Amino acid sequence: MTAVDPGEIFQTSTMGALLDGVYEGNVSIRDLLGHGDFGLGTFNSLDGEMLVLDSVCYQLRSDGSATVADPDELTPFAAVTRFESDHSIDVSEPRDRAALKTLIDHSLDSTNLMVAVRINGRFSMVRTRTVTKQRPPYRPFTEATHDQHEVTFTDVTGTLGGFRMPDYEQGISVAGYHSHFIDADRHHGGHALDYRLVRGTVDISVRSELHLSLQRTPQFLKAHLEHADLDRQIRQTEGG
Amino acid sequence: MTAVDPGEIFQTSTMGALLDGVYEGNVSIRDLLGHGDFGLGTFNSLDGEMLVLDSVCYQLRSDGSATVADPDELTPFAAVTRFESDHSIDVSEPRDRAALKTLIDHSLDSTNLMVAVRINGRFSMVRTRTVTKQRPPYRPFTEATHDQHEVTFTDVTGTLGGFRMPDYEQGISVAGYHSHFIDADRHHGGHALDYRLVRGTVDISVRSELHLSLQRTPQFLKAHLEHADLDRQIRQTEGG
Repeated sequence: MTAVDPGEIFQTSTMGALLDGVYEGNVSIRDLLGHGDFGLGTFNSLDGEMLVLDSVCYQLRSDGSATVADPDELTPFAAVTRFESDHSIDVSEPRDRAALKTLIDHSLDSTNLMVAVRINGRFSMVRTRTVTKQRPPYRPFTEATHDQHEVTFTDVTGTLGGFRMPDYEQGISVAGYHSHFIDADRHHGGHALDYRLVRGTVDISVRSELHLSLQRTPQFLKAHLEHADLDRQIRQTEGG
Repeated sequence: MTAVDPGEIFQTSTMGALLDGVYEGNVSIRDLLGHGDFGLGTFNSLDGEMLVLDSVCYQLRSDGSATVADPDELTPFAAVTRFESDHSIDVSEPRDRAALKTLIDHSLDSTNLMVAVRINGRFSMVRTRTVTKQRPPYRPFTEATHDQHEVTFTDVTGTLGGFRMPDYEQGISVAGYHSHFIDADRHHGGHALDYRLVRGTVDISVRSELHLSLQRTPQFLKAHLEHADLDRQIRQTEGG
């Protein structure tokens, strides 16, 4: 276990490696939670979407269910931080995804830093997808996401958690907004493709320290990490 | 001061910010040396190239001179690590820059991790450039390097120190090889554009942890960090 900086975002592996089919990492959920209480990612073999809220790691599977992840589960890609709200925005009238992004962007001093974003509230609609557990030999992520299951929640209370990363981190991370959703009961959720907030609160935690932990696994070491159309692939798979 | 991981590369700011003219940082050489004993970078206002060897920070100025930097000097961009040789390569017959890169690449298990490289030896030629101190309002780096001074050393003993970064870090760092040179007397040096090693030793320190420390300075916050031709600009300015 490496040194922990309370103000950092800790990330294991890269989005580019995930695109290349590096679906097996060696960082446990227990270790990950030592680096932060908030964040997102996925699980080995793409066995669901990950959302970390208040130090609880949820596993959002392709049937739409949410369970608390086993601390011994492993992750091939995840990013977490210790969430401390730098500022909040109260949203009292309905906003769709694009309007919320604009609202948040305008509240920031700069879009050159990293931002953890948590949105608690009532949503008229949240459209989610969840990746489906893959079996070796692994296909690239653009193909694996063909199996994804989409679920649309309507009139639901819950939490969107994720990051807004600067454009220059595309490939290492996901540039722009990337968030996962879970309902208030913590029973259902997934990777957020679209949403409409009726009312709620946006909390923003600005981060300027990134601890990028590359993997020394055989899969990572031999991965093909140069993708000519990496930007297009990330937008396709992450719904940016 | 943030937590220090002994196995990490600590980097302040990004190459993209330097390209945009962010030439003033707030990290002192004293603080930088707390994060590593080996590395490179530049100084505020581009007042010379930086090379850190054995915990000594050298300032290589445009007249070709090398001096030990004042610990209170500041840097807008630098990367350091605690150098520990993972493996060495003895070079007993002359190799030019391209042949040395190939030799090092072939000695690595993977080019997906980060590598600190130190080459001690006798060189028949080292061609260097040094940036020239700039005055505000700062021009972009591609223009500032028009002022650079080139010095060619022949039949010189000295050290090349730097990094080989994976391609996916282009923009955050310099993809591929990037090294600075200083002679054995520590009196002359610069950013290495070309070289030919007669004989010497290559030491390689493989790193999988990157601590990227973004700047919260007004210059960094307002910088334009998306460059459509970023790759070309870095190859032009860094001589990749």
